[in-house]
Amino acid sequence: MSFDEIIDRRGTHCAKWDKMEAIYGVPADDGIAMWVADMDFKPPQVVRDAMQAQVDHGIFGYFGDDSKYIAAIQWWMQNRHGWTVEADWIFTTHGLVNGTAMCVDAFTAPGDGVVLFTPVYHAFAKVINAAGRKVVECEMVYNNGRYEMDFDSWDAQMTGSETMLVLCSPHNPGGRVWTKGELEQVAAFAKRHDLILVSDEIHHDLVMPGNTHTPMAKIDGITDRLIMMTATTKTFNLAGGHSGNVIIEDPDLRAKFAARMNALGSSPNSFGLIMATAAYSPEGAAWVDDLVAYLDGNRKLFDAAVNAIPGLASMDLQSTYLAWVDFDGTGMRREEFTKRVEGDARIAVNHGPTFGKGGESFLRFNIATPRARIEEACNRLAEAFKDLQ
Amino acid sequence: MSFDEIIDRRGTHCAKWDKMEAIYGVPADDGIAMWVADMDFKPPQVVRDAMQAQVDHGIFGYFGDDSKYIAAIQWWMQNRHGWTVEADWIFTTHGLVNGTAMCVDAFTAPGDGVVLFTPVYHAFAKVINAAGRKVVECEMVYNNGRYEMDFDSWDAQMTGSETMLVLCSPHNPGGRVWTKGELEQVAAFAKRHDLILVSDEIHHDLVMPGNTHTPMAKIDGITDRLIMMTATTKTFNLAGGHSGNVIIEDPDLRAKFAARMNALGSSPNSFGLIMATAAYSPEGAAWVDDLVAYLDGNRKLFDAAVNAIPGLASMDLQSTYLAWVDFDGTGMRREEFTKRVEGDARIAVNHGPTFGKGGESFLRFNIATPRARIEEACNRLAEAFKDLQ
Repeated sequence: MSFDEIIDRRGTHCAKWDKMEAIYGVPADDGIAMWVADMDFKPPQVVRDAMQAQVDHGIFGYFGDDSKYIAAIQWWMQNRHGWTVEADWIFTTHGLVNGTAMCVDAFTAPGDGVVLFTPVYHAFAKVINAAGRKVVECEMVYNNGRYEMDFDSWDAQMTGSETMLVLCSPHNPGGRVWTKGELEQVAAFAKRHDLILVSDEIHHDLVMPGNTHTPMAKIDGITDRLIMMTATTKTFNLAGGHSGNVIIEDPDLRAKFAARMNALGSSPNSFGLIMATAAYSPEGAAWVDDLVAYLDGNRKLFDAAVNAIPGLASMDLQSTYLAWVDFDGTGMRREEFTKRVEGDARIAVNHGPTFGKGGESFLRFNIATPRARIEEACNRLAEAFKDLQ
Repeated sequence: MSFDEIIDRRGTHCAKWDKMEAIYGVPADDGIAMWVADMDFKPPQVVRDAMQAQVDHGIFGYFGDDSKYIAAIQWWMQNRHGWTVEADWIFTTHGLVNGTAMCVDAFTAPGDGVVLFTPVYHAFAKVINAAGRKVVECEMVYNNGRYEMDFDSWDAQMTGSETMLVLCSPHNPGGRVWTKGELEQVAAFAKRHDLILVSDEIHHDLVMPGNTHTPMAKIDGITDRLIMMTATTKTFNLAGGHSGNVIIEDPDLRAKFAARMNALGSSPNSFGLIMATAAYSPEGAAWVDDLVAYLDGNRKLFDAAVNAIPGLASMDLQSTYLAWVDFDGTGMRREEFTKRVEGDARIAVNHGPTFGKGGESFLRFNIATPRARIEEACNRLAEAFKDLQ
């Protein structure tokens, strides 16, 4: 398959393309959807074949025998991440927003503080607030064009009512692949403040050449307070399958999580399991290698074009396909640069403030789309900001 | 399509056929799976076409624009059940075990009593217990070969700590279609004891000729404490889609339920929505009419054969495809008649006691399978109990 193939997703119950007019006012007919974090690419052939086989079989009843599914997850974590996972550590949630929410539900109490390093994926704050817990925003330092952690400041910010930290690793937005040293400091921070550490590693497979992702599970001495979250949904573009892996080594934490899963009658849909079983395979791995190379090309093209506009700065993506562009240098108010992007360039993007403190001057652009669309988006942005040239 | 078509479900991740040897010791090679409540039939062509279109499109990203899905649910409830449902009453849960569990979570507190009219669908007790609530078993009267309610006795049983009643309507197992008069008494009971009433109507479309199902929502004066649950999964054999409708008219109950859905980050997978949108249609309706006629034929054949064996009594199914057979008249101990069914006849069935009080002498047989299999099962049962003839 070619990632260059333009597939019209309009009218296919696609959130990214079908809702951009209603939400952002970006016209459906010639707008470019660069917001929702899914890709405009088909998943690997091996996944489509598995779905086709299921449709050919024709009966969509209760799923049984998940041994191949579990083995596929274990294979992937071992072979792609050097991380040994036992079968009984694995829970399947309805995606990782649900996974995060289940962690909040299982391991914290109403009123507890849940720490986020902001700006960060907006759904974390949404479920934390919805559960009646308190979002504690620890703002990252924006240094030399990238985000860095600021533990001295964050230590001072803790009040003792915090019981959980949700880390996004690699980071969304901004695309940092945290170094092993940084992750060790995160682990020490969690221990120092007695926090359960939820490590959302949903982007762990989408790491640009030259960077190495370290699973938090491989940091010494943290597993007794660690929840790992990974998924096929981001890696293979299977968000509709709504399936996520919550992986817990510690037996006590696992028992607590299992109790809440059982109490909520939570069991997975067949299609997420069937697609994951197919995706976590050598064929899936080869496709991911090609995908990452393509995304790296998109990233370079997009960054070069955006950074050529005076006042705009696209953060160097070490991971993810979510470009994080700072408009602060334009001196414009948020309403103005947003109007130029959405109204003039007709590009639907995510707004920075939804990601929490530190996101105010940013917009997030999803670059997981055929290159021709990236080129068109770059041209439109250059035109929309041509007075700055 | 023909319901007579024999489709081999072994090796297709099918719980019913692939797990019967491990769980019941019924051999995979020539056993007959009559336990798990899904059907050995393909869903309507309109559903398979919708899934094929999705596979052909090839991108399985985030679902957007659920207006057709919601409209399809409204159309079905109006046209098949004479029940007007507003769009904002509808929640989509991950099937109705999750739906029941979400109700328990949203509307009761740990330690509360949750009333069940037993014997009844085993997963209710499972999620109630898992949530740390107390199952209150109100045993039905087995009268003239059918289950009846016993409100005088149940009134005396209430302690004041009960806060919810989960009704199965039509009833599983036993297949009663409750009369309007009975449902009015259930509503009065719920009011008298100040219980939230969860009406699980998952079998509402599978009603045998001569019977009429009344939605609890059409009983006067109950909507302020009523949660309705329906689904495509049983009607169209789409259990793998893990999608259920929880429908709440009362704004206060709805707000409470929505708060828990949001706190748990619960949103549905695309495939359940796509299949439901296709199924709740005139094409789907025509298929259900054919299905029910076929199941009615299976039921008559099965009941005649079983009731011809001295000491066995198959309850007259007014609804569902789950035959409920009483072995009490054989005078055998449970171990003996179960061994004859599983060991001699090589049929995997659900065991009565899992359905709660009153189920001790029963086994549940799923008759939603091609007629040739019903005939074979009948022959095997006759042979296994031939000493009684």
